Amino acid sequence: MTKPKPRNAFYAQSGGVTAVINASACGLLETARKYPDHIAKVYAGRHGIIGALSEDLIDTSKETRTTISALRHTPGGAFGSARYKLSSIDKNRAEYERLIEVFKAHDIGYFFYNGGNDSMDTAQKVAEIGAALGYPITCIGVPKTVDNDLPVTDCCPGFGSAAKYIAVSTREAALDVASMARTSTKVFVLEVMGRHAGWLAAASGLAKDSGATVGAAAAPHIILFPEVTFERARFLDKVQKTVNRHGFCVVVVSEGVRDAEGKFLAEAGTKDAFGHAQLGGVGPVVAQMTQQAFGYKFHWAVADYLQRAARHIASKVDVEQAYAVGKAAVELAVKGRNAVLPVIVRKSSKPYRWTVGEAPLSAIANQEKKVPAHYITADGFGITAACRNYLAPLIGGEDYPPYRRGVPAYASLKGVGVPRRLRKKFPL
Amino acid sequence: MTKPKPRNAFYAQSGGVTAVINASACGLLETARKYPDHIAKVYAGRHGIIGALSEDLIDTSKETRTTISALRHTPGGAFGSARYKLSSIDKNRAEYERLIEVFKAHDIGYFFYNGGNDSMDTAQKVAEIGAALGYPITCIGVPKTVDNDLPVTDCCPGFGSAAKYIAVSTREAALDVASMARTSTKVFVLEVMGRHAGWLAAASGLAKDSGATVGAAAAPHIILFPEVTFERARFLDKVQKTVNRHGFCVVVVSEGVRDAEGKFLAEAGTKDAFGHAQLGGVGPVVAQMTQQAFGYKFHWAVADYLQRAARHIASKVDVEQAYAVGKAAVELAVKGRNAVLPVIVRKSSKPYRWTVGEAPLSAIANQEKKVPAHYITADGFGITAACRNYLAPLIGGEDYPPYRRGVPAYASLKGVGVPRRLRKKFPL
Repeated sequence: MTKPKPRNAFYAQSGGVTAVINASACGLLETARKYPDHIAKVYAGRHGIIGALSEDLIDTSKETRTTISALRHTPGGAFGSARYKLSSIDKNRAEYERLIEVFKAHDIGYFFYNGGNDSMDTAQKVAEIGAALGYPITCIGVPKTVDNDLPVTDCCPGFGSAAKYIAVSTREAALDVASMARTSTKVFVLEVMGRHAGWLAAASGLAKDSGATVGAAAAPHIILFPEVTFERARFLDKVQKTVNRHGFCVVVVSEGVRDAEGKFLAEAGTKDAFGHAQLGGVGPVVAQMTQQAFGYKFHWAVADYLQRAARHIASKVDVEQAYAVGKAAVELAVKGRNAVLPVIVRKSSKPYRWTVGEAPLSAIANQEKKVPAHYITADGFGITAACRNYLAPLIGGEDYPPYRRGVPAYASLKGVGVPRRLRKKFPL
Repeated sequence: MTKPKPRNAFYAQSGGVTAVINASACGLLETARKYPDHIAKVYAGRHGIIGALSEDLIDTSKETRTTISALRHTPGGAFGSARYKLSSIDKNRAEYERLIEVFKAHDIGYFFYNGGNDSMDTAQKVAEIGAALGYPITCIGVPKTVDNDLPVTDCCPGFGSAAKYIAVSTREAALDVASMARTSTKVFVLEVMGRHAGWLAAASGLAKDSGATVGAAAAPHIILFPEVTFERARFLDKVQKTVNRHGFCVVVVSEGVRDAEGKFLAEAGTKDAFGHAQLGGVGPVVAQMTQQAFGYKFHWAVADYLQRAARHIASKVDVEQAYAVGKAAVELAVKGRNAVLPVIVRKSSKPYRWTVGEAPLSAIANQEKKVPAHYITADGFGITAACRNYLAPLIGGEDYPPYRRGVPAYASLKGVGVPRRLRKKFPL
């Protein structure tokens, strides 16, 4: 019996990065190094899938153990990510063929794609076309998204840390506003991410002490979800009642909130590579609305990238899960599984227990999980006990990065390129 | 020899709160409890000086040792602060007389005022009018401001923690943008506080690895100070060169940046693609400017209260200094000093050594310390080595709060009121 020759692997980060996507890379790379009989080298795409299309590969074997280990506590996408969605096979078969060509040239037998639902769709298609073109390749997804909008998996690595950042920030800002409200700001608005799914907005609800009925401990007083149609009059009424009762009002608004006509409250007018409208600025819109109606002094914050890059306040659970799915992806691959991804399975909420399961890529691809109705209070402005029960474990524990001279010491890669083997350049 | 009877003390928080103003309160209250022969009870103003004027006093002796101790790690102003500047004695003598009346009614012999330059001015005036009205009162300032704009003291408690938050956030956001720049955001703008003094904007410079010349480690690439007149053409030129070189550009802008006519950029009234007036801050204004000029995709964040409430990422040095000035204020008072405040004195930068000194309130009152020219690079867009040398120690060390269920366990006061002794209400 001859032992099969080990093959190289290709790893790519995709879409918006998170505080822990590199923890998944760390789990994947450290685990791959334990299976030299199956996996020779892991090449990473410089800027994700674009690195494959343009044959711009990073040789991760040139990175030290220390650097790979430091990825666990480094936010952003260390290898570069991309907002680049492959078209359908019918529309742009050349792209898929090019991928296979590059994989073939570098003896790549494994494709690990670390991303959201679009990326799981791509990985699925690569598995299909590889087989069709006579170059079978093992395609394994690694779930990632701050939005927590993937189906099947109980939660998405990346979400817990952003959720923790938002819960902590809301609690802190509420204490600030409560201090000042007597003579200054009455309405504070924090804008958070979440174009279609309000999970991050919901996470702000964890800032509230369950049972608290007054003051800062009862903040946020209003959460605006993309799942709930924005009604100006009802919102303003709630703001006024809150200010009358507490002296101030803390509002957390999801960037994706829409009015009855389905229009985003804030529309930047630009579109990203996926054709999604670029949003931003609903925070000031909502804050200003309260001033126009009642003359309240307001302040607003827009967390933007800070929320998804905030590794300094990462959730320990999230870091562990991100690492675990990276590790499990390799284990699935060496077990011979294909077109699947590791997912988080919740065993119990109190105490929180979880494990890593497995799902077909097709179950995740292009699906979107929104905040269900029973997680939102009847008035549409808060989270229910069931939602709290679901969310609370995901922000559990702290996992602080090391510091040097007052700032986090994050990993910096050498990023050594793999020598090109193809003459042809691919037009992107 | 008869021992003098101990007197009560009045403590008030003033102006914008910080992540560590309660650490000063903690130092002050814990130290006052050590001098029962001098200080009987410490009453805190509910919402600062307004609490004195309206005779709304909180009896801090009703708070447990555990609660007082937890103030050290609790952001915001636990007793409530106020944006309320007392007029000059000539204009509103009644206000000062009322203060003395309340102090007299509650046998208050010490006035501790925790604030910025306005507050030091008020404390100074109270000392003067108390003496003039035959009710001598010991008036001690406790310095506080996130803006770091007080003279005499080497730095201001409150600044170091906000500075650390900004340095950490800038470093994290830069890693995010660097990951995505190939196909997505090219320009990221973080707006920070600082209406007149650019210390907080300067602090973002600590995110940069000294010596780094490319990529995320070299961010922020551009800092916009209120001390430097904004010139659109020079700014845009620098953005373009930065994007050409690094692939992206991280800008940190102070809210107080003005153009050549002295107009705040935030008030510039730029319009979006649809001709709608752009709401809010200077961050979006500056970001949009780069899109209009070069078509760059942009993102912006406005940290707002998050930066000054971010106790979760407080500077250890800052927490220690905040505690130390609260403690020293009481020690000065029991030593019989009056109309003074404790200040931070730097003994050396490398290694960082500091001590607590003393200054007259009059030296601080109504003064403003801006970022000096030799702390800003010749092009006006960065910080010099001298500035880094000054700033770096102030964000040194971490001082994490305890957590409960994923969020910081911050102190919550009982806030028991002191029974009123005066019939007259005071119109505010």
